[in-house]
Amino acid sequence: MSRFLRSDFCHLDVYTPGEQPRDKSYIKLNTNESPFPPSPGVQKAAAEQAQSLQLYSDPECTALRQTAAKQYGLKAENIFCGNGSDEVLNFAFMAFCDASKGIAFPNISYGFYPVFGNLYGLDCTQIPLHEDFSIAPEDYLNLNKNIVLANPNAPTGMLLRVAQIRSILDANRGNVVIIDEAYIDFGGESCVPLIEEYDNLLVVQTFSKSRSLAGARLGFGFAQKAIIDDLNRVKYSTNPYNINRLTLAAGEAALNEQSYYDANCRIIMENRQWTTDALQALGFEVLPSAANFIFARTNQIDGEALYRALKEKGILVRHFSKEQISDFIRITIGTAQQMQALVDAIREILN
Amino acid sequence: MSRFLRSDFCHLDVYTPGEQPRDKSYIKLNTNESPFPPSPGVQKAAAEQAQSLQLYSDPECTALRQTAAKQYGLKAENIFCGNGSDEVLNFAFMAFCDASKGIAFPNISYGFYPVFGNLYGLDCTQIPLHEDFSIAPEDYLNLNKNIVLANPNAPTGMLLRVAQIRSILDANRGNVVIIDEAYIDFGGESCVPLIEEYDNLLVVQTFSKSRSLAGARLGFGFAQKAIIDDLNRVKYSTNPYNINRLTLAAGEAALNEQSYYDANCRIIMENRQWTTDALQALGFEVLPSAANFIFARTNQIDGEALYRALKEKGILVRHFSKEQISDFIRITIGTAQQMQALVDAIREILN
Repeated sequence: MSRFLRSDFCHLDVYTPGEQPRDKSYIKLNTNESPFPPSPGVQKAAAEQAQSLQLYSDPECTALRQTAAKQYGLKAENIFCGNGSDEVLNFAFMAFCDASKGIAFPNISYGFYPVFGNLYGLDCTQIPLHEDFSIAPEDYLNLNKNIVLANPNAPTGMLLRVAQIRSILDANRGNVVIIDEAYIDFGGESCVPLIEEYDNLLVVQTFSKSRSLAGARLGFGFAQKAIIDDLNRVKYSTNPYNINRLTLAAGEAALNEQSYYDANCRIIMENRQWTTDALQALGFEVLPSAANFIFARTNQIDGEALYRALKEKGILVRHFSKEQISDFIRITIGTAQQMQALVDAIREILN
Repeated sequence: MSRFLRSDFCHLDVYTPGEQPRDKSYIKLNTNESPFPPSPGVQKAAAEQAQSLQLYSDPECTALRQTAAKQYGLKAENIFCGNGSDEVLNFAFMAFCDASKGIAFPNISYGFYPVFGNLYGLDCTQIPLHEDFSIAPEDYLNLNKNIVLANPNAPTGMLLRVAQIRSILDANRGNVVIIDEAYIDFGGESCVPLIEEYDNLLVVQTFSKSRSLAGARLGFGFAQKAIIDDLNRVKYSTNPYNINRLTLAAGEAALNEQSYYDANCRIIMENRQWTTDALQALGFEVLPSAANFIFARTNQIDGEALYRALKEKGILVRHFSKEQISDFIRITIGTAQQMQALVDAIREILN
């Protein structure tokens, strides 16, 4: 820290990304990446763009938004493109929260929400999950705060139904409700169709999970035009050319090959079921997941010990030290072969 | 604007990027891009990375920083990588400025500085350029504010010598001095070697100009480790994976082909001299430029009229409506052929 850092930033708790080992020898089930490469058109599109990188990217992301609008049945004006969904979330925190308007979210959820809250000095209400790790919509009524909910939630994987989210939207008409659908493509129902009805809804999605583009950094915000305009106001005040040409082209190509990604999601969901069954057979409790990961624990070994034992065997999963969930590990769902290796390794560790 | 936007953002003056026409029929001399494509290795590196986009990028940008450290004669810990230099500047404004510590910059400079100042509600001191459009270092002594200076300045192209910047650094030991060297590779002398000596210096550079990567979005911050740590603190509180895999690889490849870019810079500087001579012969005043653009005016036609007449002839330059400089146009230096077309068009317009 330098002597010039503004004083309220001196004690920031920053976000800790999952380990990104560089030796490539791990089975990497720790950051919820897709085990499948991007579709063929993505590579072609990126290579093509590499020839004209001397020109700025389109700050309006017009082509990408138009392609997305068709696929989602929206207008381009309802779509915001971010340098990853983290940027969309960051801009939303900046645009809608301040000293007079705080934000509420579950105490167990995406670890970035309290980081944003901390950075911007916000009044954050962290609402406990219920004992079964579920989110109860009735805890989120009439809070007079903005709200951000990951659906499905992370790292539990548990899903709220659209009717439940509707009840939260109805009871918070004076506040923005952000639904972070990073993992929605693995069996959940999206709230995107609700944006027409609710001017207080912002839905955030990412290309990092179901669309195999974690390394390209691309996310979407979906909302009524006024909310999108607000996000653009922040973007044009911080980084108008936020998305590079390669990623814009890759994202558009991916949208045009949706069936490839749909098929991958079906495989992930099958492998999720297989892994859940296998772990339950080994005595694990596995929370019901609608994501590309599962959250599991057993009373035979504690979470951190299991994480370490797996790492020694060349398998990376993620462990969170937070008290309420420290006995769990979060396992990204990979290929059938990777899941077999995981289950074999866990069986060995338990024996 | 939505009814949810925080009230102090309702009157933001956002940054206006230069026109980015999509029909490709213009000679584009309006956004200071390079007329040369990236070097061959860049394309190869990007295509290679497109195969593994399902994996997150390295949030620490280790390989790129190590390569840059070698080239610049620094340690990797002295280098910060941003999603364009705009992001580096944004993070610096966030880290070092607040209600108690404002920032000073010339009243004519990169248009983004007042945008950041406005966004973060900062006390901004805009110090007038002198009548010859130069920056006088003695105007920047003992201000008790942070300082940001583009060197060479934009849109004038005029350069401060390192000894002049040193005097500013010496007289502002209690404040951060940001030297924005977006255009330093076209004949200026960089302040990067000063970072060892000054703990209050942050030098910002970009790959968008001399390195033909405007569309890839990559910028550097150079400073002592403590300042770099502060920038990382903001990055890890907003968007840890700020740079995608394709851009990281493209940037590394570009650094490894430096001689290609050096040769391009020499051509740009030759074309700058040729264009300056040609415009002076047509009766223009051309400010002495150390950048890849020139700032020129004539009493034969006003700046906006000339901009419009050139646009009609298929040549885009940039005009700024700010009073002190509204009689100028800013012309990006392109290829010899493009400059010939520009001069021919101006000759026709004046006749």
